[in-house]
Amino acid sequence: MNITFIGAGNVAWHLAQALHAAGHTITAIYSRNAAQRDALAGKVAAAAIVSLDLREEVAEVVLIAVPDAALAAVAAEIKVKSGTVVAHTSGSQPLAILAAVAGAKAGVFYPLQTFSKAKAVDFAQVPLLLEAKDAEALESLQALAQSISKTVETVDSEARKQLHLAAVFACNFTNHLLGISQQLLEQAGLPIALLRPLLQETIAKAMQQHPFTVQTGPAIRHDDNVIQAHLHMLQQQPRWQDLYRLLTQSIQDSGNQA
Amino acid sequence: MNITFIGAGNVAWHLAQALHAAGHTITAIYSRNAAQRDALAGKVAAAAIVSLDLREEVAEVVLIAVPDAALAAVAAEIKVKSGTVVAHTSGSQPLAILAAVAGAKAGVFYPLQTFSKAKAVDFAQVPLLLEAKDAEALESLQALAQSISKTVETVDSEARKQLHLAAVFACNFTNHLLGISQQLLEQAGLPIALLRPLLQETIAKAMQQHPFTVQTGPAIRHDDNVIQAHLHMLQQQPRWQDLYRLLTQSIQDSGNQA
Repeated sequence: MNITFIGAGNVAWHLAQALHAAGHTITAIYSRNAAQRDALAGKVAAAAIVSLDLREEVAEVVLIAVPDAALAAVAAEIKVKSGTVVAHTSGSQPLAILAAVAGAKAGVFYPLQTFSKAKAVDFAQVPLLLEAKDAEALESLQALAQSISKTVETVDSEARKQLHLAAVFACNFTNHLLGISQQLLEQAGLPIALLRPLLQETIAKAMQQHPFTVQTGPAIRHDDNVIQAHLHMLQQQPRWQDLYRLLTQSIQDSGNQA
Repeated sequence: MNITFIGAGNVAWHLAQALHAAGHTITAIYSRNAAQRDALAGKVAAAAIVSLDLREEVAEVVLIAVPDAALAAVAAEIKVKSGTVVAHTSGSQPLAILAAVAGAKAGVFYPLQTFSKAKAVDFAQVPLLLEAKDAEALESLQALAQSISKTVETVDSEARKQLHLAAVFACNFTNHLLGISQQLLEQAGLPIALLRPLLQETIAKAMQQHPFTVQTGPAIRHDDNVIQAHLHMLQQQPRWQDLYRLLTQSIQDSGNQA
C-alpha cells in the first residue's frame, strides 16, 4: 500500500519504519518539525513535504500521527483526493474529529504502546485498535495492521477513550512510580536491577488475577508504623509524600470494597 | 541445614518450601494461625509447634517471617539455644530489633519479592538481601540463600529500609494502579491482556533508561484537553480522580526538574 504520514514524532517514527519494513511504500512525510521530518523521510525512502494539500499524492492511506492537541488543526487544514482513507493514531480522540476532512474515509489506527525514538519496538507485539464507519476503509486499515501486528482489534471511540485512560494509569503513571522508585534506590546507592524480578512478578500476577485481590504491602495490611516511617523518610519530597499518602488511602479503600 | 520457621504467611509459605526443595530440613513451624501452620508443616514435613521456646529444637537457623507489626513481640518472647542464627525476613525492620533475643546471632534474610499463596514463585529469580554482624551467622545465611537464589547481596538496615520504600512504590503502588486500570477496562468490556505489551515495554524501558527521561502521556505533554477529559471520565471515582490529578502534577514537577 502507499501511505503518507502527517507527523514525525515518536509514533510516526516507529510506525512508518514498521510499515516500510513490511513492504509498504511510504510516499511522503509531512511535519512542522523539519529536522524530524527529514530524518524519518530518509529512514523510509519517502519524500519530505511541506504542504497539507495531498490531492496530488498517490497514497491510498494517510496516517495522522500528531499530538492530540494538534489533531483538530491538521484535520481542518488537510486536503486529500476523494476516497482516501485518512486515519489518526490517537487513543483519546474520537473518529468524528476527522469529519472535517472533505472527501476522506475517516479511520483510527491506534497502536497501544509507549514509544521513544531511542528504543526499538517489535510491532508484532503491539495491539493495533482500529475504527472506521466505511467498510472498505476498515478493510484497508485491517490489511495494513495485520501486515505488521499479531493483535488487531476493532474498538469504537468510547471504548478506545476508556482504554486510553486505563493505559495512562497502567503505563504513564506506573512509569512515574518507577522513576520515584529509582530515585530512592539511587539515594541508597542500590542498582535498579534489584527490582526487576519484583516488577516482572507484579505484572505477571496482575495478568492472572485482579490486582486488587493480590494487593500486598503496608497499606493493605494497615501497618501504620511502617507507613509513618515511610512518610518520614519522604519528608524532603513533599509531592512524593502526598502521593504515598493518597495511594495508601486508595489501596485501603479498594481493600474494603474487595 | 536445619531450619525452624516462625510464621506461616505468604513469605514463610514460599520460602519454607523453596528451602525444603533445596534439601534443607524444616524442623518445625510455629504460627498463631493453626490452620496455616498445619498446612505448611504438612507441605515441608515439619513439626507444627505451639511454643516460642525453641531451646530444645535442633535448628541452626530460625527464620522469623511474621508481619512487621508482630516482629517486636516475637523477638521479646522467643527463646533459642545459644549461638543459634535468628533472622527476620522484613524489608522495613532493622537488624537491631532482634537484639532482644538472648544468645542468638541476629540476622536478616529479606526476599525482595511479592508473595501470594495462590501463585508459585521461582526463588532462583528472587534477590535475597542479607545482613548480620556476626561473620559466621552471615556465612550461614549466605550458604542458605545461595542454595535457592542466584542473586544474594549484603545490605545494611538503612539501605534495606530505603529499598523497601522503593519496592512499595514499584510494586505495591504499581499494583494498585494496575487494579484501577483493570477496573476501567472492565467498564468498557475490554480484556486486560490488551495492556500486557504496554506493561512489558514500560518496565523494559525503565530498566534501560531513567523513567523520568522516557515519560510519555498527556501529563508530560501538558495536554490539558485530554487531562480534563480524563478527570471528567473519573467523576464517579473521586479518589481515582484525586490520584490522577496528583500523579499528573508530580509528573509535571519531575519533567521540569529533568
